[in-house]
Amino acid sequence: MKHQQDEASRQEMMAKAIALAYANTAKHHGKPFGAIIVKDGQVIATGVNEVVATCDPTTHAEMQAIREASRKEKSTDLSGYELYASGQPCPMCLSAIYLANIQRVYYGYGEAEAAEAGLSTQYIYEQVALPMDQRDVRLQQIDPSCSELKPLEAWSRHAR
Amino acid sequence: MKHQQDEASRQEMMAKAIALAYANTAKHHGKPFGAIIVKDGQVIATGVNEVVATCDPTTHAEMQAIREASRKEKSTDLSGYELYASGQPCPMCLSAIYLANIQRVYYGYGEAEAAEAGLSTQYIYEQVALPMDQRDVRLQQIDPSCSELKPLEAWSRHAR
Repeated sequence: MKHQQDEASRQEMMAKAIALAYANTAKHHGKPFGAIIVKDGQVIATGVNEVVATCDPTTHAEMQAIREASRKEKSTDLSGYELYASGQPCPMCLSAIYLANIQRVYYGYGEAEAAEAGLSTQYIYEQVALPMDQRDVRLQQIDPSCSELKPLEAWSRHAR
Repeated sequence: MKHQQDEASRQEMMAKAIALAYANTAKHHGKPFGAIIVKDGQVIATGVNEVVATCDPTTHAEMQAIREASRKEKSTDLSGYELYASGQPCPMCLSAIYLANIQRVYYGYGEAEAAEAGLSTQYIYEQVALPMDQRDVRLQQIDPSCSELKPLEAWSRHAR
């Protein structure tokens, strides 16, 4: 019985995330993604993909929800919170999920369905997993001793 | 000669990114990271790590710089722009670099130096590279037919 209630509750939350995604596309011509952050059955924050409206490629639905939740809760630590995302998170959003200590993520549409709509992020997953010198983006180190300032040392002194 | 000028110019930009990082820690007790986005030798946008001040774990220096640059330039496409980051980008920031089409990244301090200061992101790189069912974060699909709404179909109709 408890299990069935939990299942029904999760489906209800997912339906909310999908409704956000749908409205974002149908009403605002935005990309079809929505996300909700939940704690103890309560919605703490929501987000939709705002990339089309803002031109800011970091405004994925999950990012916007994490930003809202962490600022509202005044904590970078969202362990105990759950994220419902209408689509499988991209590696940027997944990394943000780790940075926020979110441990449970529910998603609706998978990578295959996103790819069919021209919204795959598989390429970025593959690139991030490669050793630095094999990536398409060229990452080059410049010796930080070009500056006399030592930010990491300053942080270590401060953090002690 | 041209090569030496380019090298000097890159060192100057890196010194600026490191100065941002240093000031962020020394003056604001923020994490020691700064970033600059450059086009044709001109600084377009800057960012510092604002995680301590905002409690928002997505406010890494590179993210803040990408957000500012894309909004200012009114384009998600920053190909032709270069990113200077005082520290090697984490997987969230690297994914955002791909999403923004930035193809050249210069970084100062590497992962080993970040780790020494307690600021490693190696764990997240390892997690993102794993198959979904092997990650520490539990990612579970919920059948999206729990909603009658079809956001991806709406997007495909709109995008046609």
